[in-house]
Amino acid sequence: MPQKVRIALDAMGGDIGASVVIPGAAISLSRHPDTEFLLFGDRALIDAELAKHPAMKAVSRVIHTDVAVSGHDKPSQALRRGRKTSSMWLAIEAIKKGEADVAVSAGNTGALMAMARFCLRMLPGIERPAIAGIWPTARGDSVILDVGATIGGDAQHLKALAVMGSAMASVLFDLERPTVGLLNIGTEEIKGREEIREAAELLRKLDLPQMKFIGFVEGDGIGQGAADVIVTEGFSGNISIKVAEGTARQISEFLRAALARTWRARIGYLFAKIAFKALRDKLDPNKSNGGVFLGLNGVVVKSHGGTDAEGFAYAVDVGYEMVHYDLLTKINQMLNRDGSALSPAPAAQEAVS
Amino acid sequence: MPQKVRIALDAMGGDIGASVVIPGAAISLSRHPDTEFLLFGDRALIDAELAKHPAMKAVSRVIHTDVAVSGHDKPSQALRRGRKTSSMWLAIEAIKKGEADVAVSAGNTGALMAMARFCLRMLPGIERPAIAGIWPTARGDSVILDVGATIGGDAQHLKALAVMGSAMASVLFDLERPTVGLLNIGTEEIKGREEIREAAELLRKLDLPQMKFIGFVEGDGIGQGAADVIVTEGFSGNISIKVAEGTARQISEFLRAALARTWRARIGYLFAKIAFKALRDKLDPNKSNGGVFLGLNGVVVKSHGGTDAEGFAYAVDVGYEMVHYDLLTKINQMLNRDGSALSPAPAAQEAVS
Repeated sequence: MPQKVRIALDAMGGDIGASVVIPGAAISLSRHPDTEFLLFGDRALIDAELAKHPAMKAVSRVIHTDVAVSGHDKPSQALRRGRKTSSMWLAIEAIKKGEADVAVSAGNTGALMAMARFCLRMLPGIERPAIAGIWPTARGDSVILDVGATIGGDAQHLKALAVMGSAMASVLFDLERPTVGLLNIGTEEIKGREEIREAAELLRKLDLPQMKFIGFVEGDGIGQGAADVIVTEGFSGNISIKVAEGTARQISEFLRAALARTWRARIGYLFAKIAFKALRDKLDPNKSNGGVFLGLNGVVVKSHGGTDAEGFAYAVDVGYEMVHYDLLTKINQMLNRDGSALSPAPAAQEAVS
Repeated sequence: MPQKVRIALDAMGGDIGASVVIPGAAISLSRHPDTEFLLFGDRALIDAELAKHPAMKAVSRVIHTDVAVSGHDKPSQALRRGRKTSSMWLAIEAIKKGEADVAVSAGNTGALMAMARFCLRMLPGIERPAIAGIWPTARGDSVILDVGATIGGDAQHLKALAVMGSAMASVLFDLERPTVGLLNIGTEEIKGREEIREAAELLRKLDLPQMKFIGFVEGDGIGQGAADVIVTEGFSGNISIKVAEGTARQISEFLRAALARTWRARIGYLFAKIAFKALRDKLDPNKSNGGVFLGLNGVVVKSHGGTDAEGFAYAVDVGYEMVHYDLLTKINQMLNRDGSALSPAPAAQEAVS
């Protein structure tokens, strides 16, 4: 673990850019004073923000570029236009050069993943990257992966997700042996997809001291906190997390409208304000901001593009935790225990085209 | 449309059986007096319940059997043990014999589907059955299918789901041209699965007057009511609906706990009671009770096994609506417009083994 956690920020990423990124990082810095920042982007914009945040300015180095990846760029376009030059690329490359321990960007997910894969390459033993999300549950938080890096995947892929997700959960939630469940459905005689049943077999055999496989979890089990880590391929993972976000938003809006409808309800709201604040905090999407790219030689955190400074701060926090508790070493240890945790197929590493 | 809607009930299905099924049907009867019932199950239990519900008794015929499919029977077991004899089978068979227009059961989904396929067979042009669910959204209700009848499926399957789902939405929600969206994810350069993009092409070409294809919908769009009909294969459909149910339950429980925590919050609750009742009604899983089996020569409705009489009544209501507004004719019309709405593959019909 380095003395200080060195975080590279794509200061041009997201819907707003520097004026969210820098205040956000400043909030995170106040929680983790042992942080240093590399800020990639338009120096004029960055300096203007740093002037308002002297503590942040004191621990930051600015590297100027005026090339920014747009939210609408396709991954291939972003690579073509922004490789070696864009704030996003440079933030990632700082990891490769050993100048930063983690990169955080609110830029577009596809471009960020393509650049991260291209620049950092996959970990030995991992064939495909994943994005891990944080899911607020009735028992605390769970990690869910993959929420959309790749679609589909065989049993080996699901096993790799389980290993990486457990490492992340142990780091984030300070757990010695996180529980791991495979997302599945339970209405068919032959339950769920073939590859999921195979993955269950593999995970039962794996028996690592750093994770505890508990079997299948259905869609309604995620929010109950049935497992610390929920493993699924990227299509259903993405659908799941978006359905949950959508449902939470829908209920909040309905409740807000219902509480404003009559004077009695409005009075009730005033009395129960603290309860509603607790609910709002609980449902605050900012708090689960920070998708972690796993499977690469380096940690990259993706913040929501539309987040505010508070939300961006959570994504920076996630990056901090990953480095501070040494996620990559943990993953590598789990992958290489007896050299047999995963049996990588001999296939060549995929390059983003 | 028949003079009266004739509903066959599996009076032994569900966690409780006759003492939920008959009071539930009685509630539905009070809403739809033009209903007649065939009740399959243990005559002693059924008669005891009918004695408490004279209006129900007046329009019911009881067919005795003491064979019941258990909630734990695998579909193949259920077929082996309960074919031709169980209350579940007999209720379905009543449709085939022309004695009933629809069957409703709270028995186990796998067994019910297996028996329904075996007994009723698939509609011409449809290769695989689907289960359609009702999703309460910010704009009203939407139909989502498939929520777990079969896993996976090609573009033709998704197209068939779109046609059947639109017919159901037009019947249930009284819409002339329901909007249809394909569930997809939006984080990849090549968005989503191959078959989903193909299905989008097919649906764009189809251009039926009874449905309006609006493109892809992401997970958080379902609850916003982005489309009247959400089309997806059974794995992600099942995950989606269960995630939404789980999230709603989780939020309700959290809110209940928060409102009981302090005296101020408890007072607030008293004032805002009506608002909370509205929320509870909105989230009431009973109101979306009733999974509709589509693609068969007959309509079968599956109620949740653990529901109460109120919830079972909703499932009976759904069955009533399907018949009253002639779902099957609508589906057939859409399938056979110019004989080209669907191009069935020449494959033989699958039989449940």
